[in-house]
Amino acid sequence: MTQSVGIVGFRGYSGIELVRILERHPHVEPVLLEHRSDSEKTPAPRGAQKIRSLALNAENVERAGLAAVFLATPPEVSMEITPALLAIGTKIIDLSGAFRLRTVENYKRWYKADHSQAELLACAAYGLPEFGTEHIRKATLISNPGCYPTAANLAIRPLLEAGLVDRNAGIVCDAKSGVSGAGRKASLKTSFCEVTENFSAYSVLEHRHVPEVLQNSGLEEGEFSFSAQLIPVDRGILETIYFRFRNKTSANEVVDTYERFYSGKPFVRLYDPGTFPDLHSVQRTNFCDIGVKVDEATRRCVVVSAIDNLGKGAAGQAIQNMNLALGFAETDGLL
Amino acid sequence: MTQSVGIVGFRGYSGIELVRILERHPHVEPVLLEHRSDSEKTPAPRGAQKIRSLALNAENVERAGLAAVFLATPPEVSMEITPALLAIGTKIIDLSGAFRLRTVENYKRWYKADHSQAELLACAAYGLPEFGTEHIRKATLISNPGCYPTAANLAIRPLLEAGLVDRNAGIVCDAKSGVSGAGRKASLKTSFCEVTENFSAYSVLEHRHVPEVLQNSGLEEGEFSFSAQLIPVDRGILETIYFRFRNKTSANEVVDTYERFYSGKPFVRLYDPGTFPDLHSVQRTNFCDIGVKVDEATRRCVVVSAIDNLGKGAAGQAIQNMNLALGFAETDGLL
Amino acid sequence: MTQSVGIVGFRGYSGIELVRILERHPHVEPVLLEHRSDSEKTPAPRGAQKIRSLALNAENVERAGLAAVFLATPPEVSMEITPALLAIGTKIIDLSGAFRLRTVENYKRWYKADHSQAELLACAAYGLPEFGTEHIRKATLISNPGCYPTAANLAIRPLLEAGLVDRNAGIVCDAKSGVSGAGRKASLKTSFCEVTENFSAYSVLEHRHVPEVLQNSGLEEGEFSFSAQLIPVDRGILETIYFRFRNKTSANEVVDTYERFYSGKPFVRLYDPGTFPDLHSVQRTNFCDIGVKVDEATRRCVVVSAIDNLGKGAAGQAIQNMNLALGFAETDGLL
Amino acid sequence: MTQSVGIVGFRGYSGIELVRILERHPHVEPVLLEHRSDSEKTPAPRGAQKIRSLALNAENVERAGLAAVFLATPPEVSMEITPALLAIGTKIIDLSGAFRLRTVENYKRWYKADHSQAELLACAAYGLPEFGTEHIRKATLISNPGCYPTAANLAIRPLLEAGLVDRNAGIVCDAKSGVSGAGRKASLKTSFCEVTENFSAYSVLEHRHVPEVLQNSGLEEGEFSFSAQLIPVDRGILETIYFRFRNKTSANEVVDTYERFYSGKPFVRLYDPGTFPDLHSVQRTNFCDIGVKVDEATRRCVVVSAIDNLGKGAAGQAIQNMNLALGFAETDGLL
Repeated sequence: MTQSVGIVGFRGYSGIELVRILERHPHVEPVLLEHRSDSEKTPAPRGAQKIRSLALNAENVERAGLAAVFLATPPEVSMEITPALLAIGTKIIDLSGAFRLRTVENYKRWYKADHSQAELLACAAYGLPEFGTEHIRKATLISNPGCYPTAANLAIRPLLEAGLVDRNAGIVCDAKSGVSGAGRKASLKTSFCEVTENFSAYSVLEHRHVPEVLQNSGLEEGEFSFSAQLIPVDRGILETIYFRFRNKTSANEVVDTYERFYSGKPFVRLYDPGTFPDLHSVQRTNFCDIGVKVDEATRRCVVVSAIDNLGKGAAGQAIQNMNLALGFAETDGLL
Repeated sequence: MTQSVGIVGFRGYSGIELVRILERHPHVEPVLLEHRSDSEKTPAPRGAQKIRSLALNAENVERAGLAAVFLATPPEVSMEITPALLAIGTKIIDLSGAFRLRTVENYKRWYKADHSQAELLACAAYGLPEFGTEHIRKATLISNPGCYPTAANLAIRPLLEAGLVDRNAGIVCDAKSGVSGAGRKASLKTSFCEVTENFSAYSVLEHRHVPEVLQNSGLEEGEFSFSAQLIPVDRGILETIYFRFRNKTSANEVVDTYERFYSGKPFVRLYDPGTFPDLHSVQRTNFCDIGVKVDEATRRCVVVSAIDNLGKGAAGQAIQNMNLALGFAETDGLL
Repeated sequence: MTQSVGIVGFRGYSGIELVRILERHPHVEPVLLEHRSDSEKTPAPRGAQKIRSLALNAENVERAGLAAVFLATPPEVSMEITPALLAIGTKIIDLSGAFRLRTVENYKRWYKADHSQAELLACAAYGLPEFGTEHIRKATLISNPGCYPTAANLAIRPLLEAGLVDRNAGIVCDAKSGVSGAGRKASLKTSFCEVTENFSAYSVLEHRHVPEVLQNSGLEEGEFSFSAQLIPVDRGILETIYFRFRNKTSANEVVDTYERFYSGKPFVRLYDPGTFPDLHSVQRTNFCDIGVKVDEATRRCVVVSAIDNLGKGAAGQAIQNMNLALGFAETDGLL
Repeated sequence: MTQSVGIVGFRGYSGIELVRILERHPHVEPVLLEHRSDSEKTPAPRGAQKIRSLALNAENVERAGLAAVFLATPPEVSMEITPALLAIGTKIIDLSGAFRLRTVENYKRWYKADHSQAELLACAAYGLPEFGTEHIRKATLISNPGCYPTAANLAIRPLLEAGLVDRNAGIVCDAKSGVSGAGRKASLKTSFCEVTENFSAYSVLEHRHVPEVLQNSGLEEGEFSFSAQLIPVDRGILETIYFRFRNKTSANEVVDTYERFYSGKPFVRLYDPGTFPDLHSVQRTNFCDIGVKVDEATRRCVVVSAIDNLGKGAAGQAIQNMNLALGFAETDGLL
């Protein structure tokens, strides 16, 4: 029997992708939830007319018996919406940055705004299932990770936990993203003529996704250098990560470390040493693909980590989290 | 009075760009030199029929009184052509990697081939004019730098010479290039369907341009980590360079260091701290644009260096070298 | 129970798409068939190693019990392969132009080559299921239509049969295709730098797909003007078709005519008058989307017809034909 | 001695291109004119800070002694600005559609708005110099043609005047434009993710540029069918034009007709029969390139006409008009 789940923010790229995947999900039926903040925004995507649509309010959500609601909204909208939905017992999967950081101070520093729901930070489950699923299965508020931190944490954490990395020398993460990562709102920066035949860096050393990597990897700020860059493609993230080993380590040892860590995890794929994923490898999938190059003589390592920013970086991972929270198979609708 | 200069390899992208710039040069007229290795290759570019064309041999070059000859050819062809042209006193500007490294051992290791003109390595002038022009003015064989090393050396060397960089922590150079950098020869890797909506890493930690950076910057191999990546654009290189300062240093000190170093150099442009060039900033120019971000608290620095791979990275710089070698103003034809 | 079907030419874009769709087909399992002509060509696509692979010969095909074999090969290879496979009773779905035209004279004129299997032309079923499925269900040799003729015939024929079109005034079909339509073989014309930021016409008034439209629509050559053009996109065809009505006709009448003709046909979608599909509407689908604009006062009509050249224009339609030939539901694996 | 000329709307793509060309013009220096309608719009382009800038008003224009003012503004802004500038004797070159049509009725029908300066329509010179330059030299108000009509009229009118075309059969003009033709204002329709890997038709049979073709070619509305389409490129227009000859006509006769008509016109380039320009042929130039294909047996002809929408389609042609109006050589700054 299928359950209904709601989507707030279905006009954005993450929302469109949620609908696209959920329409094929074996156990779930999507319902569009119109929010006041939608009204003057962009038009509904193709095919949206065929899907059931409701005004977003607790009454409608309750009456429709929505098992979960996805929030593909800006953080301030997510903060506003969440308490009433939690009050009626709906599970929430929030794709914004509202509940990813653990302290309001950190939020204020990186998001340049006050946090209006400080008490919810403690109860939000960080939804990166490869690092543990129990807290996600039990959570009522799941905070879906940022796109960049998903690719970075999946690449870095197994090697940090195995004690391979020389943290003193620092880790560099040079990240590149397709334009859909900037959202569907019209802006000169994401207009075709500004992006085509171009490539540009932004938020160098000060991207708001940095603290999300630090808090999940245990790294200090000075140990993790991150730049974001815009590629003239629709979707996909590729991160090139550089660090030094503490001791001499081979590429095979690195791949082995990953394989042990990700044994039984269906959405991480490892490449043979010296070969790398590209964006075509992961577009329209929920996979994170990882390739490794090691220079043993100098103890240097480069890891290339690729995801679809709308897949494992947003909607795909959100549905993976929903699968856990609602008791479905982790891969339902995602292969 | 205009002088004639020859171009071997005028069917490739660097050759096409050489012709395009030289056609507007105030003191020089281009002559196309057909080489045997051209015969089965790609068609001549648009407009090439209007330009004087000769079969490449010493007699023709001498009779035509060519003041200089550009070699936009693979290294093995450059090695083959060079001795006879030097013998008749023509100045040569070689855009290949044939004469960039100082030892045949280094050449063999990185180019995976033997060097047939070892004795010429010592007399070739490395043509990066921002690091000194006297040896270029006097040279008969000028080795035009690689595209990646040009952007990297211009960004790194002033800071290394000023003693700002903590070399122990290592320098990471994450480089991205447009597809024209791979040449005009048809290949699946550079075909539209493989490149569009894609982004991929290659030659990670083992690109043949690495030793060119080392030998010009004085860095050790273990101190300089370099990856090349393909952007779905026609032309342009952007390098994101990460390192740590030895001591607390401000962004303004970095920009000041560059400004002192590049005072009077017309082709390096510096950006205000925290702002960065993108590919649109430099396409179809001979500029190298540099932007800087510093995190003082953690002594980390990111430098973004952008050039046009066919401009300052190849044909533009070759003409800048020709200007020096033939006694023209350094900027003739290039602004 | 699943049946096995073979794919010759699985390294090309149509072959890759066949494999991609067949891997998800509920009743069929793909088998890769290596042909001699593959050997020096492009590398196998991602994931191909996981699929069963055989050398192509009648013995292997028979022993493997292949219910059908797809030929995603050049016409001359299809001609060579077909007789032996027919001899052992395998159904063949040929994606090349080998068996689309009805006479060897026509083939010779448009394909500039002799036809080596003239006797097969009469028995090949033209596989455009929207124009009848019985001959496809019964056929042993199915000739899959060309990409351009599929979009053109689906747009034109219903209106011609309804007698709406003023044939004397002529029909103009201005066709645009993504680059994958040119195949996966490396060539300068389809290299990234030549295609990006470009748009070009080719085979103007002399494309080899023209006779395929004429023979299926009943138009005379002088009544149908066709130009092909290359768009800088990976996949998708959009055709803009201009003609005049014999009598005053409204846009609604046109849409009604289509709807009657395509009633019960699952892969043609009609748009409201004055609205049009674009490439995003049809990419990675087997749909043909059709939009109409009418200027009643001047009896002029423009029809926009869009397909995915690798979907309804090649692999998708081939699988639709396979579904009919093997007795599956027409839409199996295609929605 | 250089003269100063003003640019209103210098933040748009046509304005940016005007500045870019004028900065290299031998006789003219650009001055940026800030208009009230600019204030909340897009940021000034790169390098704009280095150029003299004034608030737009008659006093400033007079005191600065501007010989001409370019209006790269929407039609309603051009209408508002023009009278005061004319009153002080400044020559105006308007790039909008405000003064292209000859009657207010026509303007109202196609631009869906009232015309506030009806009396100026009669005195505006239509600035397509290939069709006569005297009226442009003498004009004080020059209306710069639309991009699509420029490419269409240059292709059609010589053949119409020579009496070659069968007007009864109609002319089809299938036009494609790069995205910069839609202006620099941010909009979802021109955002990267909507345009990349896409191709779409718009304003089919009802584009506001149609009456501009009719009034310059003498065609009736029912004889000229025009569709506009968006290509995923930054700049360039290619129009594919289909018609029938009245009598048997060869491709060479067509090219001869063009050559006679365009003798001494520096900005039209003709191709050998059967060969065609593409967008790369004309980008960043003021050329209109024309190629022809004829099928003699059926009296059909296809003409491919290509321009840069920001060059000959806007800023380039505007400067060509300025050259005429200010007495410079027609090609100054444009080759």
